[in-house]
Amino acid sequence: MASYLEQNQERFLSELIDWLRIPSVSADPKFHGDVLRAAEYLKTRFEEVGLQNVELCPTAGNPIVYGEKMIDPSLPTVLVYGHYDVQPADPYELWTSGPFEPVIKDGKIYARGACDDKGQVYMHVKALEVMNQEGGVPCNVKIMIEGEEEIGSNNLSIFVRNNKEKLKADVILISDTGMLANDQPSIEVGLRGLSYHEVEVTGPNRDLHSGLYGGAVANPINVLCKMIASLHDENNHITIPAFYDKVAVLSEEERAELNRVPHSDEEFKQSIGLPATYGEEGYTTVERIGIRPTLDVNGIWGGYTGEGAKTVIASKAYAKISMRLVPHQTSDEITEIFQKHFESIAPAGVTVVVKPHHGGEPVVTPTDSVAYKAAADAMETTFGKRPIPTRGGGSIPIVAMFKTELGLDTVLLGFGLDSDAIHSPNEHYGVFNFLKGIETIPHFYRNYAAAVQQ
Amino acid sequence: MASYLEQNQERFLSELIDWLRIPSVSADPKFHGDVLRAAEYLKTRFEEVGLQNVELCPTAGNPIVYGEKMIDPSLPTVLVYGHYDVQPADPYELWTSGPFEPVIKDGKIYARGACDDKGQVYMHVKALEVMNQEGGVPCNVKIMIEGEEEIGSNNLSIFVRNNKEKLKADVILISDTGMLANDQPSIEVGLRGLSYHEVEVTGPNRDLHSGLYGGAVANPINVLCKMIASLHDENNHITIPAFYDKVAVLSEEERAELNRVPHSDEEFKQSIGLPATYGEEGYTTVERIGIRPTLDVNGIWGGYTGEGAKTVIASKAYAKISMRLVPHQTSDEITEIFQKHFESIAPAGVTVVVKPHHGGEPVVTPTDSVAYKAAADAMETTFGKRPIPTRGGGSIPIVAMFKTELGLDTVLLGFGLDSDAIHSPNEHYGVFNFLKGIETIPHFYRNYAAAVQQ
Repeated sequence: MASYLEQNQERFLSELIDWLRIPSVSADPKFHGDVLRAAEYLKTRFEEVGLQNVELCPTAGNPIVYGEKMIDPSLPTVLVYGHYDVQPADPYELWTSGPFEPVIKDGKIYARGACDDKGQVYMHVKALEVMNQEGGVPCNVKIMIEGEEEIGSNNLSIFVRNNKEKLKADVILISDTGMLANDQPSIEVGLRGLSYHEVEVTGPNRDLHSGLYGGAVANPINVLCKMIASLHDENNHITIPAFYDKVAVLSEEERAELNRVPHSDEEFKQSIGLPATYGEEGYTTVERIGIRPTLDVNGIWGGYTGEGAKTVIASKAYAKISMRLVPHQTSDEITEIFQKHFESIAPAGVTVVVKPHHGGEPVVTPTDSVAYKAAADAMETTFGKRPIPTRGGGSIPIVAMFKTELGLDTVLLGFGLDSDAIHSPNEHYGVFNFLKGIETIPHFYRNYAAAVQQ
Repeated sequence: MASYLEQNQERFLSELIDWLRIPSVSADPKFHGDVLRAAEYLKTRFEEVGLQNVELCPTAGNPIVYGEKMIDPSLPTVLVYGHYDVQPADPYELWTSGPFEPVIKDGKIYARGACDDKGQVYMHVKALEVMNQEGGVPCNVKIMIEGEEEIGSNNLSIFVRNNKEKLKADVILISDTGMLANDQPSIEVGLRGLSYHEVEVTGPNRDLHSGLYGGAVANPINVLCKMIASLHDENNHITIPAFYDKVAVLSEEERAELNRVPHSDEEFKQSIGLPATYGEEGYTTVERIGIRPTLDVNGIWGGYTGEGAKTVIASKAYAKISMRLVPHQTSDEITEIFQKHFESIAPAGVTVVVKPHHGGEPVVTPTDSVAYKAAADAMETTFGKRPIPTRGGGSIPIVAMFKTELGLDTVLLGFGLDSDAIHSPNEHYGVFNFLKGIETIPHFYRNYAAAVQQ
């Protein structure tokens, strides 16, 4: 007989698609109304699956959608976290279908937020529905879905600090990461932190004609390029003084263990169309992504960018620069170090302003905890293969915050794939992954409840 | 009694303003209809001042507006050149009044093209009207105003090559340059050439999440910055091999002569709001602009440039890069050298495409010719002060082309000022300069006709 999940999968998908239609872009004020609509939509779904005390918790920014299912105070409590806001979708012209007009194609749901993180959040909602029909939820559940993850989760931190009693739990469960492949499950146990800045270089007080002035004034674009170029040496080592001071150095054994994950540089290059790998000398691709901090320019602009030629020396040039951090770097410290250094390397003739955006702390989660084992066992049951612990390159800043504020460890039970193009045009999420998530999560609850009660 | 010019100056200004209202931006196809309207407007004005054989000469691009006044084949012929197309006006938000809604404020006409070059072209049209009323035009005049100067004058070159008989003349007269100050006239005798490129750096085949990939792939923005930074050394000397090979080296005497022009670094810095001058080590500001080649980035773009933070590694990054050339560099040669060099410095892991835009040749015009003396005398008459010959930094590529194709020297009788903000927001042209031009040009014709006939 078909399971409840099998019988209802079409409806589950269509509910997710309705949610993905709402462009809940938190970075751009013009989508503010849509962000609120996305929160309301989720609140209604919470109520439908029988969650209690469902509410939109107000913050100084976007509301947090909260609900709980308290079975028995003597049972353990799992606090589920996720986010309903999404990255901006531009450049729109590179999407083959509209980012907010979801379509299922070749077994994948294409839409902004399909994987990051609406699709993965919705697995948890539907897993609760499935458990309701198949023996009930085996422990207490609290679920808290925020709307500002893509812009730094500042208001979430405040909310958590002010609601420690309400959020009391035994473990945090998050699905906002990926796994190695559909036939090789994995669980992330390390996450990089983030320090993100916007920089502005000002040369002359107005745009100048490059013929009349060229050669005799500091061109802010050339200067910005020079400043950015100087941030790496010829080995792609970052040159900012003190940047590496606190970076955790792994033992040879730890590095060997890390490099045991299935990874092929050939496949890696092919998957993103690159003729060569690139990165810090002396480290493998897995290490460059997992255990080493980085510095990338995420955006740059200045001068004439239209069609044809304009012989102008711009007054200003801009860039967005971010650094991924590893244990035991801290976001505040690196933000300060970067700001000071970047301002110090400005040549005479220009002024430089560094404006820090949000940051986030690097984190390593335990692999010997009851909750990790419950998650690994759950994946082994549904995938038929033991998951591998991996060090991911992304940042989920709130993992460190949960540890500090609530004293709780996190399990990162993610079902995305690297190829899902999150933060890119044509983001998608496998129907297989969505359904496999809904199938796996109840096993986690059962394993965890059983292990804690022993 | 008031002169004809004094009696009609309001009308002359209002005709110019009507012309400036037409946004004849040649670089952007969406203004194509306006470019044609601007040509038609000028054609009608040509007819009104009694020019003969007035026509819009078709080209593969925008038409050339042509007219002539043939008095007597035994008299010398002056060929006037100018352009009715204008630079793009963006960024629009930095204009205090609309770029195509001309206003006169504090004695200046504010509009895109007010100085470059519609305002200066229109002086010639009105100078003909004035001469008609005050004794007649003293020699033959041909006038040819093109619509593609701001995008490289490619079709003009073809037109000139195919119409050598029609364009037969004794000297070229152009008002498309500036002078030192309203109380210190000057005439440009050296112009820099131009080599202009758009470069595209491609890394991964799609935008990537900087957390999942950062550190292990070539970020095309970082790479582009590094490549651009490497084009200058620590003395702001250009590092492209063979770039300086053909640069004319001036004698100590020539340099001393050049530096005799009135110039103050303090005033220069103040006028553009810069705390320090900047440029190639070992040269003065006047030399950096006048006799040294340069390399400037005119525009750069890539990645996320919207509000807020997006942690993306872009697939592509772009820049517009131009070089100002000096005698005896040639545009074709430098274009080839640049293209080869820029492609050669691309690191493994990215692909680079260099797309050359238009170029132009550097040129030095004679100061001992009959025409130059006629122009200098004309300015001395109307300004009460002898003009100084200067080496300008801008490029008028067609000056070299006229020499090659027609064997003619050019006189650059320009009335703009450095502070006119051509190619920038709030371009303007002094009413004084416009009227002084109309007053001066007839003196040039009289001086020149008299000298040639002696």
